[in-house]
Amino acid sequence: MSSPAVLSGRAALVQELGIETVTETLPAKKQPAELLPGECLVKLEYTGVCHSDLHFMLGDFRQPKFPHVGGHEGVGHVVAIGEHTAQTAFKVGDRVGVKWVMDTCMQCELCLSGTEQYCEKRRLAGFTDWGTFGEYVVAFVNHLVVIPENVPSPAAAPILCAGVTVYSALKNSRSNVGDWVTITGAGGGLGHLAVQYAVAMGLRVIAIDTGEDKKKVCLELGAEKWIDFKESKDMIQDVRAAADGVGPHLALVATGTHGPYIQASLYLRPTGKLLCVGLPAGPLNGLHLTPIAVRGVQLLGSALGSRKEVAEALALVARGKVKPHYQVVPHEQLNTVLEDMHNGKIVGRVVLQY
Amino acid sequence: MSSPAVLSGRAALVQELGIETVTETLPAKKQPAELLPGECLVKLEYTGVCHSDLHFMLGDFRQPKFPHVGGHEGVGHVVAIGEHTAQTAFKVGDRVGVKWVMDTCMQCELCLSGTEQYCEKRRLAGFTDWGTFGEYVVAFVNHLVVIPENVPSPAAAPILCAGVTVYSALKNSRSNVGDWVTITGAGGGLGHLAVQYAVAMGLRVIAIDTGEDKKKVCLELGAEKWIDFKESKDMIQDVRAAADGVGPHLALVATGTHGPYIQASLYLRPTGKLLCVGLPAGPLNGLHLTPIAVRGVQLLGSALGSRKEVAEALALVARGKVKPHYQVVPHEQLNTVLEDMHNGKIVGRVVLQY
Amino acid sequence: MSSPAVLSGRAALVQELGIETVTETLPAKKQPAELLPGECLVKLEYTGVCHSDLHFMLGDFRQPKFPHVGGHEGVGHVVAIGEHTAQTAFKVGDRVGVKWVMDTCMQCELCLSGTEQYCEKRRLAGFTDWGTFGEYVVAFVNHLVVIPENVPSPAAAPILCAGVTVYSALKNSRSNVGDWVTITGAGGGLGHLAVQYAVAMGLRVIAIDTGEDKKKVCLELGAEKWIDFKESKDMIQDVRAAADGVGPHLALVATGTHGPYIQASLYLRPTGKLLCVGLPAGPLNGLHLTPIAVRGVQLLGSALGSRKEVAEALALVARGKVKPHYQVVPHEQLNTVLEDMHNGKIVGRVVLQY
Amino acid sequence: MSSPAVLSGRAALVQELGIETVTETLPAKKQPAELLPGECLVKLEYTGVCHSDLHFMLGDFRQPKFPHVGGHEGVGHVVAIGEHTAQTAFKVGDRVGVKWVMDTCMQCELCLSGTEQYCEKRRLAGFTDWGTFGEYVVAFVNHLVVIPENVPSPAAAPILCAGVTVYSALKNSRSNVGDWVTITGAGGGLGHLAVQYAVAMGLRVIAIDTGEDKKKVCLELGAEKWIDFKESKDMIQDVRAAADGVGPHLALVATGTHGPYIQASLYLRPTGKLLCVGLPAGPLNGLHLTPIAVRGVQLLGSALGSRKEVAEALALVARGKVKPHYQVVPHEQLNTVLEDMHNGKIVGRVVLQY
Repeated sequence: MSSPAVLSGRAALVQELGIETVTETLPAKKQPAELLPGECLVKLEYTGVCHSDLHFMLGDFRQPKFPHVGGHEGVGHVVAIGEHTAQTAFKVGDRVGVKWVMDTCMQCELCLSGTEQYCEKRRLAGFTDWGTFGEYVVAFVNHLVVIPENVPSPAAAPILCAGVTVYSALKNSRSNVGDWVTITGAGGGLGHLAVQYAVAMGLRVIAIDTGEDKKKVCLELGAEKWIDFKESKDMIQDVRAAADGVGPHLALVATGTHGPYIQASLYLRPTGKLLCVGLPAGPLNGLHLTPIAVRGVQLLGSALGSRKEVAEALALVARGKVKPHYQVVPHEQLNTVLEDMHNGKIVGRVVLQY
Repeated sequence: MSSPAVLSGRAALVQELGIETVTETLPAKKQPAELLPGECLVKLEYTGVCHSDLHFMLGDFRQPKFPHVGGHEGVGHVVAIGEHTAQTAFKVGDRVGVKWVMDTCMQCELCLSGTEQYCEKRRLAGFTDWGTFGEYVVAFVNHLVVIPENVPSPAAAPILCAGVTVYSALKNSRSNVGDWVTITGAGGGLGHLAVQYAVAMGLRVIAIDTGEDKKKVCLELGAEKWIDFKESKDMIQDVRAAADGVGPHLALVATGTHGPYIQASLYLRPTGKLLCVGLPAGPLNGLHLTPIAVRGVQLLGSALGSRKEVAEALALVARGKVKPHYQVVPHEQLNTVLEDMHNGKIVGRVVLQY
Repeated sequence: MSSPAVLSGRAALVQELGIETVTETLPAKKQPAELLPGECLVKLEYTGVCHSDLHFMLGDFRQPKFPHVGGHEGVGHVVAIGEHTAQTAFKVGDRVGVKWVMDTCMQCELCLSGTEQYCEKRRLAGFTDWGTFGEYVVAFVNHLVVIPENVPSPAAAPILCAGVTVYSALKNSRSNVGDWVTITGAGGGLGHLAVQYAVAMGLRVIAIDTGEDKKKVCLELGAEKWIDFKESKDMIQDVRAAADGVGPHLALVATGTHGPYIQASLYLRPTGKLLCVGLPAGPLNGLHLTPIAVRGVQLLGSALGSRKEVAEALALVARGKVKPHYQVVPHEQLNTVLEDMHNGKIVGRVVLQY
Repeated sequence: MSSPAVLSGRAALVQELGIETVTETLPAKKQPAELLPGECLVKLEYTGVCHSDLHFMLGDFRQPKFPHVGGHEGVGHVVAIGEHTAQTAFKVGDRVGVKWVMDTCMQCELCLSGTEQYCEKRRLAGFTDWGTFGEYVVAFVNHLVVIPENVPSPAAAPILCAGVTVYSALKNSRSNVGDWVTITGAGGGLGHLAVQYAVAMGLRVIAIDTGEDKKKVCLELGAEKWIDFKESKDMIQDVRAAADGVGPHLALVATGTHGPYIQASLYLRPTGKLLCVGLPAGPLNGLHLTPIAVRGVQLLGSALGSRKEVAEALALVARGKVKPHYQVVPHEQLNTVLEDMHNGKIVGRVVLQY
C-alpha cells in the first residue's frame, strides 16, 4: 500500500465539550497523507474506554482542539509503516497495541532512563493526537506494543493503560513479599487489576470498596481482607487493625476521590508509601505534613508505565496471573458507554469492538 | 556515684502553655531516683534551641503534661550509667550528645531496619520525657551520640536535630552527583546546613530565601544560584529557568510555611522528589494530585535520622565539610531566645551554655 | 529459678576434629554459672543439623577450641533470663528459636543498618559459642527469634539458617515479579526452600539438580522448568534456552561446588545477578572477569539474614507459602546423621528431637 | 552533500594481528556508499587511544576481521546525516563524540532500561565496526554524544570510554557521601579519572599505585590517602588501617591485573562492594567464596556507561570538577603510541590529532 490516504474509516469525533461523539468516515491519516519515517498505521479491532477519556471530553484536563478523537487503549494490526523507518521490530501484519503515550522524544533524560512515560514532549493518544476511537490510528513504531500470542486482543486493551498504571506503581514501590497493601477502589477498573498484580508480587491485599458484589470479586482475586468503606465507622482504625495493628506498608488509591488520600496518609505505618494513581479533579485539601514528615511517609505519584513495564504487565496476563474483567460492546455504543460511565453505571472495563 | 538522686541542678520548667519557663533546682532524676539498666545521666554543657521547642510550648503538637522540660539538642558528659547496663560503648566521662529520639523499642521492624527514628514507641527528649533545658538529663545508652573529637560541643548541638534532619532527607533521596536541588529557607537554621550537606554530596544548590545577608551566606556556603522569593514574580518559572529550564531533581523545604510545598510540587522536573522536612502548622490546602501523578513526582516525608545517620552527619562536620552557624548564649536567656524566635528575630541557631 | 547452674542436661561434645560427638551430662551453663544481663537459657526441643556443622567438625573453617558443642538451628522454650536484662520482648516460657548469629555488638554500622548478621563481633552458635546440640543453650535476648504460633517447632528449625539464608539472598537481589532465577541444588536442603521463597516472590524458577525424585519435588514446589545437570550436554546453552533464550536474571547457587558458579557467571543475561550462597571449600579458579565486566554481571555474597528477615522468612512458613521438608530423628542419632551427611546420604533437612 | 562516497580520508588499517597499522586513503564509507537512515558521517579531529585497542590488535578479545580500523574515543563534527533519519537532536555541523558503543537495538529490555551499553546487539566502534582511527567514521545518530561547549575536544575524548566507565561504576555503587573507596591504579588512565569522579561524589579516596610521581598526582586530585603497593608489606592490613581500621566500603580496580581483585575481596568491610572495571586477561584464580558470602561482599561488573551517564560524566568535566590528563600527538604517531603502550611507557591518556 503506497499511502494511508487511500484508506478511510469511521471515527468517533468530538466536536465540542460534552459527552457526545459523532461518527464520520474519514481518511485514515490527516495531513500529510503519507506516513513519515517512524510512523505506522494501525487498523484497530478493539479499544478500551477509560475514565480519562471522559475527563478529557468534559474539559477537566485542558481545552482540546476540535474536532478530536479520543481513546488510548487500542489493539489491532499494523497495515502500513512509513517508508525509511529505521530500526523497528515490527512489520505489516503484526498484532500490536497502541497506548496513551504514543511517542516520546527518545533523547531527554527521562527517555534515556527507562521512564519515557514522563517525557515532557510525549504525544498522547486521544489527547495531543487523535486516538483509538476509530478504525484507524496513526501510531509510532518506537512505542508500539507487542501483544503476547496467548493474550486475546480485548483482554490486552485495558492493560495498555489501567493495567500498566497499577503495575508500574506497585513495582516501583520496591516492596517486599508479605508486605500489606490497601487498594482503594479494589473492585473497579484499575482496582481489580491492582489486586491481581499485587498478589502476583507476593503482597498481601486489603481490598477497600463497597458492596457485596465487589467484596466477592476482590476475595476471589486473592485479596486477604475486605473493608467496606460505607460500613466502616473509622477507616484509619479499621485499616490499621487489618494490617498487624500498625497499618499497611503500601496504599494504592485507584479512585478519583480525595478522601482516601487523606486517610491513607494517616493509616500507613511509619515509612509507608502512598501510591498516587487515581486522579481526583481539583485540589487536595486537608493534607497534614507533620504526620507525613515525623512518620517518614512517602507519597509517590505514578502514571502509566514504561514500554518495558507494559511488556511485563502483559506477560503476567499471558501467564494467567492477571485476568482483566471486561465486557465487549460494539463500537457504535461509545456514546452510551460514556454516558453510563458519567453516571457511575459502569462496572469493570468496557472494550469497544470494530 | 551510687545514685543521681544525690545530684541536683537547675532546669527550665514549663508550667503551662506559653512561652515562659521557670528555672528551679531539682534532683537530677525524677522517680525512681536510681538509674535503671540502660539509662544514664548526662551533665549538659550546651543545648540547642529548636523551633519545635516553641511549637511544643504553644501546644501546636499535642498537649504536654506539666511541669515539663523541653530541649533536645544536648551535649555534655556522662556522669553515671545505670547498674547492670548491658552492652554499651559508653563509660562515665565520655562526651556525648542527647538527641530528640532518646530511646526506641529496639524490637520493631523500624528499629531492626536502621530507621529507628520512626519507632512508634520512641521516647522523645523534651516531649515524652524531660529534655535538655537543664543541667542534667536522664538519657539511654542505646541512643547516646558519640561526638567526634575535633567537633566543638556547641557546634555538635544543632547537628543532633537540624543537621541530621536535612542530612537524612538528602541522603535518602538517593540522588546523583550533579543533580539540582532547591533549598527553601536556605539561610535559616535547617537551610544553611542543608546547603552544605547538599554541596558535600555533589549536588548543585539553588538557594531560596530573602535578603542580601542570606544571599551572601548561601553563596559562600556553596549554593550556585540564588532566588529571592520576595523579588520573584513567578517562582515556578524562575526555579525551572535556574535548573536547566526543566526544574530541579530535588526540592527540600526547610521552612514552616505551606506555599513552598505547593510551588515545589509544580516546579520539580518529572520524577522529581520533594523532601518534606519543614513542618507547617495546620493542613496543606491546594495540592493538585494530577500533576504529581502524571509527572511521577514524589513527596518524601523525613524527620530526624537514624543513629548511623547522626554519626555520618557529625563526621562531615568533623571533616570541615559542614560548619554550623550558631551563637552561644547563657542558659539564663532561654526565655528571651524563645520570645525572639516567636517574633522571627533569630537568625541561625542559638545554643545555650550551662 | 535462681541460676542455670542448678540445671544440667545432655550435650553432644566434640572432643577433636572428626565426625564424632560424645554425649555427656553437663551444667546448663559454663562459667560463670549465673546468666549475665542480656543472656537467657533456652531448653531445646528440636535442632536442625546443617552442613556447616560438618564442615566445622572437619576443620574446614577454622580450628575450634575443644571441647565444643555444635548446632545452630535450635527451637525450644526460655527457662531463665539474666537478672537486670533491659528491654526485651521475651519472658520465661516463650517458645523461641536460637540461630547461628546468637548476638552482635548492636553498635557498629552493620548493626545499626539492619545488616547485623555481618557484624564483625558476632557470636555464632556452635562456632564461637557452644551451640544447640544439647538440651540447654545459653542465648541472648537481643537475637532470640519469635516462632509464629502456627509453625511447628521442627519446621521452624531449618528456617533459622537454611531458610533465612536463601530468603535474604533472594530478597536483597531486588528482583521483579516475573524474573527468571536458576536454583542450583534445587532439591537439597537450601534449594527446596529457595524454590518456594522464589515462587512466593513471584519469580519464575528454573530448578537445577539431578534425578527423577528431585525433579518431581522441584516441580511440585512450583519450579516451572527443570534441568538435570548430569544430563545436560551444555549447561550454558540449556539454561539460556530455558530463560527466554537470553539467560536468567538471577542465579542462586545453593551447592557447595565451584562449577555452578563459573557456569552462572556465563549464562546470566547482561546485568544478571549471581547470588553466592553455597560455600564451596577452597578457592574458586577459572572465573573470567571480562565477561562479568562487559556484561555488567554482579556476584552478590550473602549469608544468613537479619533478625527482621528471619521473622519474614518464618512468616511465609506461617502463611503456608513455604513448607520445609525435614525428618525428625532422636537426638541420640546425631553421629549417624553426621556420618550419612558426610557420605551424601541425607536428602532434605534432618531435625533432632530432645 | 549527497553521499559520503565522494569523500575520502586517511585511515589506519590493521591488516593482521600485531601492533602495526598502515595508513591508507579510502572512501569515507564502505559499502553501501550512501548513509542509511539513522547513520551519519563524522569528520574526526581527535581520538583517544585505549588499552583495549591494543588488546584487540593482539587478538586478546576475539579474532577481528581484516582489514580493520580501531579506535573508539572520537571527537569531531557531523558532516552528513542519512536521508530520512527520524527523530534526531543532531544536525550537520554539530560537534559530537563517537563512543565505543556506536549503536544498539533500542528494543531489548536493556535498551529500554537505560542500560543500553549492555545490549547484546550493540555495535562497537573499532570492534564490530570500523572505528575512529581515521579521518572519517560512520556513526549512528541515536548514540552520538553532545560535547558541552566549554569542554575542549581532546579533553572530551578520554571521557567517552575511560571516564564514563569509572563514573558509571562509581555512580551505580549507590554509595554515600563519606564512604571510603580504594582506587587501584589511581595514577593511570582510568584511575586518575576515578579519583576525581569519586571526590566529586563526596567519597573519600585511598589511592593505590606506585611511585612518587603518581603519589603526587593522586593527592593533588583529592585522594586523602596513598598506598604504594610496591612498598606495602601487607596490602590487606594497610588498606584496612587506612579505612577506619575496618576496610573501605568500595574498591575500584582500574588495572588489568588479578592480584588487586583478590586483595579487595578480602580487605573490603562487610557488605563492601568491589567494582570490577579493569579487565585482566585470562581467568581469575584463587578467589575464595566463603569470605565473600559470610561477609556479604559484592563484586559488581561494570563497563562503559549509558548515554545519560556519558552526558553526566562530561557535565562534570564542563563544570571543572574533573580534569582529564592527556597529551595530544599527531595521528601519524599511532604506531609509536601503540608500541609504547605495549611496553608500559605511556603515562596518562594519549589523544591523536588529525
